[in-house]
Amino acid sequence: MDIKKLASLIGGTVEGDGSSDITGLKGIESAKSGDMTFAMDENLLGLAEKSGASCVLTTTTVRKSSKPLIRVANPKLAFLLIYNILNKPEIRPAFKDPSANISPSARLGENVWIGPNVCIEDNVSIGNGTIIEANSAIKKNSLIGNSCRIYPNVTIYEGVVIKNNVILHGGVVVGADGFGYVKESGKIYKFPQLGKVIIEDNVEVGANTCVDRGSLNDTIIGANSKIDNLCQIAHNVKIGKNSLIAAQVGISGSTVIGDNAIIGGQVGIADNLKIGENVTIGAQSGIIGHVSDGEVIWGYPGRPIRETKRQMAVLAWMTKNFKAISKLIK
Amino acid sequence: MDIKKLASLIGGTVEGDGSSDITGLKGIESAKSGDMTFAMDENLLGLAEKSGASCVLTTTTVRKSSKPLIRVANPKLAFLLIYNILNKPEIRPAFKDPSANISPSARLGENVWIGPNVCIEDNVSIGNGTIIEANSAIKKNSLIGNSCRIYPNVTIYEGVVIKNNVILHGGVVVGADGFGYVKESGKIYKFPQLGKVIIEDNVEVGANTCVDRGSLNDTIIGANSKIDNLCQIAHNVKIGKNSLIAAQVGISGSTVIGDNAIIGGQVGIADNLKIGENVTIGAQSGIIGHVSDGEVIWGYPGRPIRETKRQMAVLAWMTKNFKAISKLIK
Amino acid sequence: MDIKKLASLIGGTVEGDGSSDITGLKGIESAKSGDMTFAMDENLLGLAEKSGASCVLTTTTVRKSSKPLIRVANPKLAFLLIYNILNKPEIRPAFKDPSANISPSARLGENVWIGPNVCIEDNVSIGNGTIIEANSAIKKNSLIGNSCRIYPNVTIYEGVVIKNNVILHGGVVVGADGFGYVKESGKIYKFPQLGKVIIEDNVEVGANTCVDRGSLNDTIIGANSKIDNLCQIAHNVKIGKNSLIAAQVGISGSTVIGDNAIIGGQVGIADNLKIGENVTIGAQSGIIGHVSDGEVIWGYPGRPIRETKRQMAVLAWMTKNFKAISKLIK
Repeated sequence: MDIKKLASLIGGTVEGDGSSDITGLKGIESAKSGDMTFAMDENLLGLAEKSGASCVLTTTTVRKSSKPLIRVANPKLAFLLIYNILNKPEIRPAFKDPSANISPSARLGENVWIGPNVCIEDNVSIGNGTIIEANSAIKKNSLIGNSCRIYPNVTIYEGVVIKNNVILHGGVVVGADGFGYVKESGKIYKFPQLGKVIIEDNVEVGANTCVDRGSLNDTIIGANSKIDNLCQIAHNVKIGKNSLIAAQVGISGSTVIGDNAIIGGQVGIADNLKIGENVTIGAQSGIIGHVSDGEVIWGYPGRPIRETKRQMAVLAWMTKNFKAISKLIK
Repeated sequence: MDIKKLASLIGGTVEGDGSSDITGLKGIESAKSGDMTFAMDENLLGLAEKSGASCVLTTTTVRKSSKPLIRVANPKLAFLLIYNILNKPEIRPAFKDPSANISPSARLGENVWIGPNVCIEDNVSIGNGTIIEANSAIKKNSLIGNSCRIYPNVTIYEGVVIKNNVILHGGVVVGADGFGYVKESGKIYKFPQLGKVIIEDNVEVGANTCVDRGSLNDTIIGANSKIDNLCQIAHNVKIGKNSLIAAQVGISGSTVIGDNAIIGGQVGIADNLKIGENVTIGAQSGIIGHVSDGEVIWGYPGRPIRETKRQMAVLAWMTKNFKAISKLIK
Repeated sequence: MDIKKLASLIGGTVEGDGSSDITGLKGIESAKSGDMTFAMDENLLGLAEKSGASCVLTTTTVRKSSKPLIRVANPKLAFLLIYNILNKPEIRPAFKDPSANISPSARLGENVWIGPNVCIEDNVSIGNGTIIEANSAIKKNSLIGNSCRIYPNVTIYEGVVIKNNVILHGGVVVGADGFGYVKESGKIYKFPQLGKVIIEDNVEVGANTCVDRGSLNDTIIGANSKIDNLCQIAHNVKIGKNSLIAAQVGISGSTVIGDNAIIGGQVGIADNLKIGENVTIGAQSGIIGHVSDGEVIWGYPGRPIRETKRQMAVLAWMTKNFKAISKLIK
C-alpha cells in the first residue's frame, strides 16, 4: 500500500510525496527504505529523518520534514492501527496434536488448535478459534471462550471461567488455592478455597503471573484489563475494567479495585481494601488504606503523591540544614 | 446431616431449630437455603440473616438471631473443620497415564496417581497416595513422601527431599541452583550448588514459587509452614515450623528463620541473617539486620514497628509545621 | 588426587602433610575424613579444624593449623576451581526422547539431548552439546547455541536468539510480549511486540524469570551476566556484560544498564533510564532517575547510598529529639 492509502485508512494528512509503497513498519532504530516509522516529537523526528524510513507518522504540530509525513493526533496509536490493518490475527484450522490428552467429555468449538502434550480434563469447554499451545494443562470443568490464546506451560485449575479474546502468556497459573489459613492454638488449618476465577473479555495476563481462585466468593479480572508478568492476584480480588497493572504487583485477598486503574510495577496492596475508579498508583508503593476515586498515590506507605513528595522534600531540607537545626536544639 | 449433628461434631451450642439438614457450606454472599455459613461479628451476622443460609456458625457473644445459630469460640475454624469432615481428601486408585515417562528404577508406593506427560527420572521414590499432575517433571534421586499433591507444570530438580502431605502448586520450581558466584579480576565464576532441598511434612508452596537447592549445605522448609505464590527462597535458607510467608517474599541466601514466623507480602530479607522465633514482619519491609524472638518489625529498613510508625509520624509533623521550622532556622 | 597435586593445580602453597588423597569437596558443616573444605578467616578455620576435613583451603594470612592447609589468595575461588577440575561439565550422547515433538525443519547439532515431551517448532536451530529437558517448549525460528542447558518447563517464544553456554532454569519464559499498550479515549490498544530477545554467551537465568521480547527493537542480556529467580526484564531492556542481578528485580521497558552492574534483590528500575557502568544498587531500591558510572545507590527512591543513610540518620535524630523540637516550635 502506498502512503496516501495508509493515511486515508487512519484519517491522517499526507505531507510530501505520498506515492511510495510502504512494505514494513519499524522503529526508528531499525527502519530501512520502504519502512514506515513514527515520531512523537521533533527530537524523534530528527532521528527518523536520519533513518532509512520512507515515511514518518508524526503529530499535527511538529515542523516540516524532508521525508514524507503522515500527520495524525496520536502517531503511536496510528502506527498500531496500521499494523493491525496489515496483520490480521492468525486464524488456524482446527487441529489436535496426537500427543494432546483431551478428555472425551471436553467440548471443543470450531477452529480450535491444540498443541503437543496439552492436557484437557473432563467437562472443559473451549470456544471457537482458541489456540492452546504446547504443554499447557486445563483441569476439569473449566470454560474457555472464543479466540483466546493460551501460550505454553500454562496451568488452569478446575472450574475457572475465561471469556473471549483472552491472552494468557507462558507459565501463567490461574485458579490455584488462595493463601487462606486459620491459626488456632499454634496449629495452622487450611481454609477451603472453593471459589472460581472469572477472567472477562480481552484481558491479557503476563508470563508467570498467578491469579488465585476465590475462597468462598470468586476472583474476577474485569474486561479489557491488562496484567503484566509475575503479578500476584490473591483470592477474592476483584479488578475493574480497563486497568493496567505492571509487573510484579501483588494484590492481597478480597481487595476490590475500580475501573481504569493504573498500577506501577512492584506495588503491593494490602487485603480487604477498596480502591476507587480511575486511580493511579506509582511504582513500588505500599497501599495500606482505602483509596478514593481519581486519586494519584505514591509512597511507602502510599499517600497522595503530593504529600509523599512534600515529605521527601522536607526530609531532604532537614538533612541539608541539619547542623543549624541541631545547634538550635542544643 | 442436620444442624444438631454438625454442632456436636465441633462442640458447638445450637440456638434455635436444630433439625434442618445442611447440604452445603457457603460464604455469606452466596449462601442459599440448605447452606450453612459463618459470621465472625454482629455486622456479618446481620448480612448472614439477609442471606438464604439455613444456619449461621457464630461466636458465643453476639446477639440472638431469627436464624438457627451454632455458637463456637472460633466460627471460621469451625466452618473449616465441618468442611473437612464432609469433604475427605481425595483418594485416587493407582494410575499411570500411558504418556507419563517413568524410569524403570523409580519406586512408586501404593495408590500413586501419575498424570499425563509427567516425567520421573532414575531412582525417584514416590510414597503412598501421592498425586502428580500433568506435565510435572521430577529429576533423578528425588524422594517424595506420602499423600503429597503436586499440581501441573511443577519442576523438581535432582536429589530433592519432600516429606509427607506436602502440596506444591502449579509452576513451582524446587531445587534449582542457588545464585552463587565468585567475582575475581572482573570475571564471574559459578560456585557449585551441591546441597539439597528438604521440605518437611504438611508444607504448602504457592504457584510459581522457587526454592533453590543449598550450595554446600541444604535449604530446609520446616514442617507445617505455608508459603504463598511467587516467593523466592534462596540457597541454604532454613525456615522453621508453622511459619506463614505471604506472596512475593524474598529470603536471601543462608538466612535462618525461627518457628512461627508471620511474614507479609513482598518482604525482602537480606542474606546471612538470623530471624528469631515468633517474629512478625509487616508487608514490604526490608530486613537488613538480625531480628530477636517475638519482635514485630515493619519498614524500610525494617525496625520495631513502633519505631517505624513514630518516625513516620514525626516526619508528617515536620512537614505540617515546615514553615515554622524553616523560619526559626533562618 | 593428593593435597600436593591439588595445590599445584591452583597455585597454592601446602602447609603440613600434603600426601593424603582428597576424595570430596564439602562445606565445613558436612566435611568428613577425605574431604577438602575452605575457610575464609580464622573464625571459620577454627570451625574447619573441628570438622572431619582432611585439608582446609585458606588465605595466605591466617594462623597455622593442626590440619593440612593449602594457602591461596582467594580460598572460595580455589575451591570452585578445584571443583571444576574434578567435575567436568556433563557431555551427553545425542538423544531424542521418542515423546519429544521436533519439527522436521528444526536443525540439531551434534550431541544434542532432547528430553521427554519437549516441543521444538519449525526452523529452530540447536547447537552442539545443548541439553533441553522435559516439557520445555521452543517456538518457531528460535536459535539456541552450543552447550546450553535448558531445564524443564521452560518456554521460549518465536525468534529468540540464545547464544552459547547459556543456562535457563525451570519455568523461565523468554520472549513473551512486552507490556505495551496505547490508551486513547478510554480504550486500551495492544501495541505490536515485534522485537527479539538476544541472550549472549555464558548468561544464567534463574527459575521463573521472565525476559520479554522487544517492542520495535530487541531485548538484550549481555555476555556473562547472571540473573536470579523471579526477575522481570521488560521489553527493549539492554543489560551489559558481567552483571549480577539478584532475585525478584524488575527492570522496566527500554532501560539500558551498563557492564558490571550489581543489583540487589527486589530492586525496581523505572522505564527509559540509563544506568551507567560499574553501578551497585542496594536491595529493594526504587530507581526513578538516570545513574552515572560507578555510583552506589540505595533507597526509595534510589539515591547515592551516603545520602540515603544520612537522611535516615537525620530522621532518627529528629524522632529522638522530637520533644525538644516541638517545644521550640511552639
